[in-house]
Amino acid sequence: MTKLFETHAGLLADAVKAIEERGFWSAFSEVPRSYGETLPEEGKAAFEALLGKPFPLDQSEDDGRAGGEVSPFGPALGITYPRTGIDRLIERASASAAGWAQASVEARCGVALEIIARLNRASFLIAHAVEQTTGQAFAMAFQAGGPHAHDRALEAVAYAYREMTDIPQGDVAWEKPAGRKVIRLTKEFHLVPRGIGLVIACATFPTWNSYPALFADLVTGNPVIVKPHPAVILPLAITVKIAREVLTEAGFDADVIQLAVDAPEAPVAQTLAVHPAVALVDFTGSSEFGRWLRENVRGKPVFTEETGINTIVIDSTDDFAAMCQNIAFSLSLYSGQMCTTPQDIFVPRGGIETNEGHKSLDEVASGIAAAVDALLADPARAAAVCGAIQNPATLERIDKASSLGRIIRPSAPVAGQEGARTATPLILAVDATDEAAYPKEQFGPISFVVSCENVTDAIDRATRAARTKGGITAALYSRDSDLIDKAAGLYAQAGAPLSVNLTGGIYVNQSAAFSDFHVTGANPAGNACLTDTAYVAQRFRVVCVRRPAAA
Amino acid sequence: MTKLFETHAGLLADAVKAIEERGFWSAFSEVPRSYGETLPEEGKAAFEALLGKPFPLDQSEDDGRAGGEVSPFGPALGITYPRTGIDRLIERASASAAGWAQASVEARCGVALEIIARLNRASFLIAHAVEQTTGQAFAMAFQAGGPHAHDRALEAVAYAYREMTDIPQGDVAWEKPAGRKVIRLTKEFHLVPRGIGLVIACATFPTWNSYPALFADLVTGNPVIVKPHPAVILPLAITVKIAREVLTEAGFDADVIQLAVDAPEAPVAQTLAVHPAVALVDFTGSSEFGRWLRENVRGKPVFTEETGINTIVIDSTDDFAAMCQNIAFSLSLYSGQMCTTPQDIFVPRGGIETNEGHKSLDEVASGIAAAVDALLADPARAAAVCGAIQNPATLERIDKASSLGRIIRPSAPVAGQEGARTATPLILAVDATDEAAYPKEQFGPISFVVSCENVTDAIDRATRAARTKGGITAALYSRDSDLIDKAAGLYAQAGAPLSVNLTGGIYVNQSAAFSDFHVTGANPAGNACLTDTAYVAQRFRVVCVRRPAAA
Repeated sequence: MTKLFETHAGLLADAVKAIEERGFWSAFSEVPRSYGETLPEEGKAAFEALLGKPFPLDQSEDDGRAGGEVSPFGPALGITYPRTGIDRLIERASASAAGWAQASVEARCGVALEIIARLNRASFLIAHAVEQTTGQAFAMAFQAGGPHAHDRALEAVAYAYREMTDIPQGDVAWEKPAGRKVIRLTKEFHLVPRGIGLVIACATFPTWNSYPALFADLVTGNPVIVKPHPAVILPLAITVKIAREVLTEAGFDADVIQLAVDAPEAPVAQTLAVHPAVALVDFTGSSEFGRWLRENVRGKPVFTEETGINTIVIDSTDDFAAMCQNIAFSLSLYSGQMCTTPQDIFVPRGGIETNEGHKSLDEVASGIAAAVDALLADPARAAAVCGAIQNPATLERIDKASSLGRIIRPSAPVAGQEGARTATPLILAVDATDEAAYPKEQFGPISFVVSCENVTDAIDRATRAARTKGGITAALYSRDSDLIDKAAGLYAQAGAPLSVNLTGGIYVNQSAAFSDFHVTGANPAGNACLTDTAYVAQRFRVVCVRRPAAA
Repeated sequence: MTKLFETHAGLLADAVKAIEERGFWSAFSEVPRSYGETLPEEGKAAFEALLGKPFPLDQSEDDGRAGGEVSPFGPALGITYPRTGIDRLIERASASAAGWAQASVEARCGVALEIIARLNRASFLIAHAVEQTTGQAFAMAFQAGGPHAHDRALEAVAYAYREMTDIPQGDVAWEKPAGRKVIRLTKEFHLVPRGIGLVIACATFPTWNSYPALFADLVTGNPVIVKPHPAVILPLAITVKIAREVLTEAGFDADVIQLAVDAPEAPVAQTLAVHPAVALVDFTGSSEFGRWLRENVRGKPVFTEETGINTIVIDSTDDFAAMCQNIAFSLSLYSGQMCTTPQDIFVPRGGIETNEGHKSLDEVASGIAAAVDALLADPARAAAVCGAIQNPATLERIDKASSLGRIIRPSAPVAGQEGARTATPLILAVDATDEAAYPKEQFGPISFVVSCENVTDAIDRATRAARTKGGITAALYSRDSDLIDKAAGLYAQAGAPLSVNLTGGIYVNQSAAFSDFHVTGANPAGNACLTDTAYVAQRFRVVCVRRPAAA
């Protein structure tokens, strides 16, 4: 067991250093070709071998089997999963708890790090699974579903490891002078897990968004029940299978991690979340369910990443073309289905100053629209950027949204993707005073160019949206450094991480492990941050045992 | 402002080192005579000068004045306090927030440390205030109300300071290799306070139990509203007055800290706790109100220290007399009104093995009773140990409890304390199967010697009490080191800090700052720990601002 820790100790030490420095650092390459020549083919073959069959997961199917995943690109996956009943899940998790709790911090971290390493070697398999369930294009499915998710997992392990090892391990001598005598006690500090951790995953980033909680729970000693979205099971089924294999090989009970598969007509998340044996709940998904959890789950920590309204404010720019290209890519990537995708683009109605001279509001709007057109002109690139639409409801939302403002750019299917559910960005123009639509979340490739009084009004509306509706990202374009500095404070107060003047190969949608704190917990877009100290420190408790020091 | 930080930086560095080592460390002497010759007299005079007058606190009295404190030792204090209305409190706190949030971590810590230093110099004044409101004997009022509380305050500052300064201050360079290019961003991390912190204090340890929250809120940038128990206002009125003076001198708005005085017939805690502008709630007190807060306060962190059942298990001892003396002191100290006082003493019905040979259960019970009698035989010492009873309801509870078992030792007033509300320990004997009384909290000097099947049954009952009803302390006496090691794990799982074989000048009631984690948060006695990382890390959030690095 300590052998696994030794194998990965160097990586963990680097990760701990990275969370302290918060510059760029990544443990796992995001470049597919760096994984060698055989892994891509093996991953593809492994994925295809899973199709149309019962998924080989060694869990009880006392509640039968379930699974009706249909690829947003067309075909049904035809995979079924064991459906383990709630009582059975709790019973098995509880039975596994003592052995896992008693394992040393190093043993648990060693297991977690080995799981992450094996997940990383399975990145191509998982990429295909993510692609064919979430609708992400393959390149994103690989990066976000694979190495970036592994970085986020490692980051959570690093935080938890640092936090646990901050508590003295082994005996501590407590020697209090008392007059001419000294009172001597020996103290030992027991790290006590909370209990069963429930991790409720989302349908768009099943691994990236759930790994931090999953691994934070695991290494702090809590058995984990992973509840995937019923439309996106496979990536987490593979994850749980690999984790169970590592646990077993390391001599632990495989039930330290279990998959809770349910069907849309018989959901289990609520029942599990309020179950007395469940001590920790993590959730990524809609604000509606997030609110239900926050209101109904009592007496245990609940960590949520919900939704909100991400904004862009355009005051001025030194590179109008690059700005439009950058925004166009942010709107188009995964057809706007990222929790970080901008929705509202606030522009002063008098227009903006740029390197190309003054641009009217209409010119700004059409500039962005034209950049989207240019980006998506080539069907192959359009498919690689947009991917497919995960949920049919999103297509309906786009349809309905078309009447919510003046259409700057209509949405359309991606050319050449017949059979797939696709949609390019819909861009609408509205006046800031028309608050019927833009101040609400419109999930999907739907954005608004909002005409504002001036930049002060724009920033005011953007930060108010974050404060009141939540915001996971925000962007600002300005040549005025005083304005930027002032705005930085306002966005910080609104709990919205701010990206300023992004052009080139970096986008507001992107959140880098070990550097960006994803979700601040400071506005309604979520009450937790991936990952900070507060995210891990509540997952275990410390109990002191003290006795007189041996004479 | 940084001047205050510089003044106290060495102390803070020592405190940060202490929380990492968790051996014995104390910043403030618990020995009254080490404070010199003049401070005791000055403190007494300052206290007497406050009696019978309006307390000089520069807060709005838009809701009139309140204050009906009556000393448990007899006299009414005759002090009134400004009663600031809820709207006014919130308005003032909100108005003070921006300036305080913008202050640097060092500036805020400097102010907090200066407040603590001045509180320490006011230890004698505060000791009289604590004595004459809580009923603690003077020696305890001095130590627990003064230097020990200041240690706990400093500990919270150290945790918060370490946590905040763990986030890089100043610009961080993020440089991501992207093919042959490098993407360069500059990131800055803003620490953002949560909002107004409400600190609801208890009637027994008004300073020791509230200072950690009060100072954790303050240094993380949150304005604080301190809500004292209406029977025990003075110690916190003095605290808030001193804090407001330091804030003002340092150039901040005094309303960064305010006192919310209420009257029993018009309580304000609930209204304040659910107020949308209040972002953090800390509470020490009854489980009943703690439950109300946990169930009704949504969407904001709530930190509670509630109550529970503290236990002793006696298996065997190498020093029967010293054990009985130690337990007797723990039962008698402040007449059992500490949140750490043992209530249930589990003893095998077959008796125990000791250095004096076998002792029957009755001999153990009468040994403890005799030790209480011996401890309290001298009236002066009895008064110095027991103090007075804070709440008249406790006396009634003792009366009623007399019928709950076989009386081993009756409670009685402390001799020579006429006019004061006093009571020595009531000790009852019951069988473990008679679960009418001992498995419930009986606050005050009421304890049960519970006859158990054997030591396994005793430990099982003790740990179950902690798991189900909560437990802040637990004690075990045994000569069997294997049994102790096994028990340590069981108590840890029950979230109950365990003290083993205490004799001499250290008692299970005592919880040392910088070493003992007070309340684990792992059983119903409270959801928070004074003080650990989780206690401070939720009181602020981090928001990143990133922009292209200057070329």
